[in-house]
Amino acid sequence: MPSRRELANAIRALSMDAVQKANSGHPGAPMGMADIAEVLWNDFFRHNPLNPKWDDRDRFVMSNGHGSMLVYSVLHLTGYDLSMDEIRNFRQLHSMTPGHPEYGYAPGVETTTGPLGQGLANAVGMALGEKILSARFNQPGYDIVDHFTYVFMGDGCLMEGISHEACSLAGTLGLGKLIAFYDDNGISIDGEVDGWFTDDTPRRFEAYGWHVVRDVDGHDAEAVKAAIEQARAETGKPSIICCKTVIGFGSPNKKGTAGVHGAALGDEEVAAARKELDWPHAPFEVPDEIRHGWDARSAGQEVEDAWRRLFENYRREHPELAAEYQRRMSAELPGDWEAVMGELLTQVNEAGEKLATRKASGNVLDALGHAMPELIGGSADLSGSNNTQFKGAKTVTAADPDGNYIYYGVREFAMSAMVSGLALHGGFVPYAGTFLTFSDYARNAVRMAALMKVGSIFVYTHDSIGLGEDGPTHQSVEHLASLRLIPNMTVWRPCDTLETAVAWQDAVERRSAPTCLALSRQGLPFQPRDAETIARIRRGAYVLSDSEGKPDLILIGTGSEVALCTEAADRLREEGLKVRVVSMPSSCVFQRQEPEYRRSVLPADVPARVAVEAGVTACWRRWVGDAGEVVGLDTFGESAPADDVFKHFGFTVTNVIETARGVLKNLGN
Amino acid sequence: MPSRRELANAIRALSMDAVQKANSGHPGAPMGMADIAEVLWNDFFRHNPLNPKWDDRDRFVMSNGHGSMLVYSVLHLTGYDLSMDEIRNFRQLHSMTPGHPEYGYAPGVETTTGPLGQGLANAVGMALGEKILSARFNQPGYDIVDHFTYVFMGDGCLMEGISHEACSLAGTLGLGKLIAFYDDNGISIDGEVDGWFTDDTPRRFEAYGWHVVRDVDGHDAEAVKAAIEQARAETGKPSIICCKTVIGFGSPNKKGTAGVHGAALGDEEVAAARKELDWPHAPFEVPDEIRHGWDARSAGQEVEDAWRRLFENYRREHPELAAEYQRRMSAELPGDWEAVMGELLTQVNEAGEKLATRKASGNVLDALGHAMPELIGGSADLSGSNNTQFKGAKTVTAADPDGNYIYYGVREFAMSAMVSGLALHGGFVPYAGTFLTFSDYARNAVRMAALMKVGSIFVYTHDSIGLGEDGPTHQSVEHLASLRLIPNMTVWRPCDTLETAVAWQDAVERRSAPTCLALSRQGLPFQPRDAETIARIRRGAYVLSDSEGKPDLILIGTGSEVALCTEAADRLREEGLKVRVVSMPSSCVFQRQEPEYRRSVLPADVPARVAVEAGVTACWRRWVGDAGEVVGLDTFGESAPADDVFKHFGFTVTNVIETARGVLKNLGN
Repeated sequence: MPSRRELANAIRALSMDAVQKANSGHPGAPMGMADIAEVLWNDFFRHNPLNPKWDDRDRFVMSNGHGSMLVYSVLHLTGYDLSMDEIRNFRQLHSMTPGHPEYGYAPGVETTTGPLGQGLANAVGMALGEKILSARFNQPGYDIVDHFTYVFMGDGCLMEGISHEACSLAGTLGLGKLIAFYDDNGISIDGEVDGWFTDDTPRRFEAYGWHVVRDVDGHDAEAVKAAIEQARAETGKPSIICCKTVIGFGSPNKKGTAGVHGAALGDEEVAAARKELDWPHAPFEVPDEIRHGWDARSAGQEVEDAWRRLFENYRREHPELAAEYQRRMSAELPGDWEAVMGELLTQVNEAGEKLATRKASGNVLDALGHAMPELIGGSADLSGSNNTQFKGAKTVTAADPDGNYIYYGVREFAMSAMVSGLALHGGFVPYAGTFLTFSDYARNAVRMAALMKVGSIFVYTHDSIGLGEDGPTHQSVEHLASLRLIPNMTVWRPCDTLETAVAWQDAVERRSAPTCLALSRQGLPFQPRDAETIARIRRGAYVLSDSEGKPDLILIGTGSEVALCTEAADRLREEGLKVRVVSMPSSCVFQRQEPEYRRSVLPADVPARVAVEAGVTACWRRWVGDAGEVVGLDTFGESAPADDVFKHFGFTVTNVIETARGVLKNLGN
Repeated sequence: MPSRRELANAIRALSMDAVQKANSGHPGAPMGMADIAEVLWNDFFRHNPLNPKWDDRDRFVMSNGHGSMLVYSVLHLTGYDLSMDEIRNFRQLHSMTPGHPEYGYAPGVETTTGPLGQGLANAVGMALGEKILSARFNQPGYDIVDHFTYVFMGDGCLMEGISHEACSLAGTLGLGKLIAFYDDNGISIDGEVDGWFTDDTPRRFEAYGWHVVRDVDGHDAEAVKAAIEQARAETGKPSIICCKTVIGFGSPNKKGTAGVHGAALGDEEVAAARKELDWPHAPFEVPDEIRHGWDARSAGQEVEDAWRRLFENYRREHPELAAEYQRRMSAELPGDWEAVMGELLTQVNEAGEKLATRKASGNVLDALGHAMPELIGGSADLSGSNNTQFKGAKTVTAADPDGNYIYYGVREFAMSAMVSGLALHGGFVPYAGTFLTFSDYARNAVRMAALMKVGSIFVYTHDSIGLGEDGPTHQSVEHLASLRLIPNMTVWRPCDTLETAVAWQDAVERRSAPTCLALSRQGLPFQPRDAETIARIRRGAYVLSDSEGKPDLILIGTGSEVALCTEAADRLREEGLKVRVVSMPSSCVFQRQEPEYRRSVLPADVPARVAVEAGVTACWRRWVGDAGEVVGLDTFGESAPADDVFKHFGFTVTNVIETARGVLKNLGN
């Protein structure tokens, strides 16, 4: 039987060989953390390689995602559908083994990591998901939701601010089944970290209320095993296991240096490491007894089978809960979803209220909160302003986690990554709010949701200079445009209560990509529409009002500026002009419509167009064309009452009309 | 003589009255921190209200910037040029008293705050600046640089991740003259923070190596005074003074609740607070004896005069140092700047090297590092990759701060805010690097630099899918476009060594706005140019090569894609087409050129245009017009060698040519 070190060396060998073959990658972390991984996966990790999507599997996150070869090695060795050819193709086009672990490529990769600290925050979201679901679904004798979330993380993760946000909140929420391994190797890319990272990390985590296991030798399997046992035994607090390791362990001349972090070892050093590790096998060759020592397929199948038997009994005793659990975990919307949404749209349309869209959004949540138990909300300390807390929402706390609202505190970045962690865990439709401007604080987590194609919903209120007195630090100017630039992202900026409800409908149904809702602070008038028009809202842009025949002019507005367009149109129509008003709550969605529909809304033979949006103009040229104009804002805002600010920057009916006249004049009309 | 409490109540009264008059704002923090501010400003703060720009003044930062009325009150009361009319006009258009303290409005406001946690990071930058300059310029008997940096901060600042990054590094750097006051009032917007913020903050700061003064009653002037004395006595570590306070102190019915945080008290409660505080004076009326107790003008003038006398002696003994100090603090570039830069440009042009622009940037820094002692660099743990560490750069450490390079660690957000803090302090031309994609982590600090109009320089390398194997998590796709959207921002994406040098020249000379440099990982060919063409680089876009007569086609490229354009142009010219190649290293700068110049580069009568940039296409329509096309990338990238990725996404000469042909065909050519 191979020794534990020999098993671990399989990770080391595959990692250094794959990096060497790609001549690119990061051998240091996989070689340094191999012994820890070996103990975790072979002694504790509860999973079934034959069914990577088994609901109650333990979750594993490599937050120091550059150590991807550790993940790929372990997945390959334990028996996931990840062939040696894929390992050989590490970092090559169309392989399942990209440079960083990417969700949706190799089975068993639970989240995309690489941007440091975010995997940790995703893991906090996953562990929170487990805690909430276990409180909701478990019954005496039936712990059907009962798994750990394990995270590997390095110095980089711990230097990043998001680690503070996520770990502070994990402590408050008492996430006892979250176990983090700190790869304390004393090295980051610039060299020995004591020049720039001198935290007493154990003390820091004690300050967060974590259970800290100090001074573990990360190359001593028994010590690691004892530490994990200790960590698992502490169920009231998250645990951090501080492991002293040597980066690039096994590389005789490079270990313990920054040189082994992010570059291939070189053929010579790979050969030397083979000797040092006593690993005589050829590259990408793993002896049978080592394979056997790792193979987790039959044990994994047994574990899952046992769970399935438990679940069948649970189903007999608690049929409704079982059905609901399975519905939620399979991301099916409630059976009456269409009816609920249909009724809501009818109500909203009939009420025809003038409301701030943030309030309209709150009303939608009031209606959906009860109909959708998987809805889990929250805000970065702006619950009342974001209108994210629906009526009857119950707060998730450490002592009573069976809730559906999370007070994230002033932690936009961790919140956003946790929202995606909840989505990745399964069982939730998660959303969370802050001011639109502070999407900046979470920008890369929002991007990661889009890259991973998870259905996170970001509720951004106070979406423009309409925020008023708080001034330019809080007034979004470039944020709408900037969020729309993210691939796979859908941004909605509704103009009234009905568009807000449709935006929510779209966001909830869009389970394979994230959505940003940009909502106004200030009241916005209701726009009446017929049934056909209502149906077109989902297309992202549509003709809100029109004159007979081919238009002389098209006014395009979003959100709070749609009302400006309709007023301007009314005035211009009085002068005999044929004016079309296009409401464009989501240019992202509109862009995905077939060209024919797009042309029906914005006909090529109507070049006189004016777009009105209280934000930067740069991306509008695409919709207004060479002959058109944009009433926008290419400077920062000003601190003053909203009406004064709008007026100051020319968001007035008069200015829209004058701009339109200028366009028509230039076109010789 | 008024009591300390009476003096403090002047802040409370002005704050609640100004908020009441505006019917908008945040009375809670000013009323809660008034006693602390009174002790700090009246007993310790070294400043001259008559000269808010005196170089050696203490710096004060209100990181919980929503408490702006505390700042405005203190500035008004101590005698800065901030009239009672301005206080009355709090939060009104064109006042000097915007909702959050904005740099450049009221004198004495050292930085713009409001986005939580960033003021703290700015302050860390300022304190670091003081430490570096004092080591550089002070001489025995001449502590000409010798001031404290004081920060106020609340729970929100401490929940934000940036507080971790900034404070961890402040501990490592031993910033002994940084003193932070934690307004521990137990309340944030969502209510009592113990539901979402349970950190043991003193312990956390001990973990960072800070000097912690615990359990200070923030309403007991003597206790606060003793705490400040303790903090000032500890010169080797930054200090945090943990002050227990009551938010909205003085408001009998709202104090200690979230209700007093961010809304006017209401007339009735204002009246009740007047009684509670025993403040019988009318709104905006401050009795003479209270005024007298606050007035710091003559004391301040004396303090500055004493410093000036010291400085005059210093100048006699150390004339060169004195002249250099004054030059740096007045943000004058070195006398030989133009000569140095001219010579560098000549050398770079003559060498004509094929180089990655990140390396070209490193070479520029090698040349400038010695010529510009005010240059202070750094990187978020990517020094070697960002090429930010010039030859002979000396690392700043706690023990030996007389350097010009900072290892920021993996802390992009704090780094970027500290860079602006260094710029705001004066005496530096600061720059710092990371990968372009990780500008996301610092996005709001970059925005704040633009809002404040400070000359921070952000060096962003690995600027596209050309980064290769690390994959889409690290490959910038939307970042160039997204940074260009920020008002006041200048983004440069040079195509070769010469454009890189010009971009640096522009960035260094641009002292009143920030710059982002987007640099390639991969080698880029040199583009030969004549002298006139070289001179036009500074205009942001220019004709790099042309055919005789009016062009049939214009190819526009940036950065690594310029070479694709020139190759495609060569091939198309062989076929007899008249092709112009426009290099557009900075559309931001180009946009600011007079229309005539812009038309000379992109004539209106040449509609056949193709832009090539390895990034999202959304903002390019403005430059290519309705008839043009963009060779870009509207999806995320892929993990693979750079050449494979470029090819995969169509960044090939063939595709540029085919796209151009398509454009010409559509135009009927």
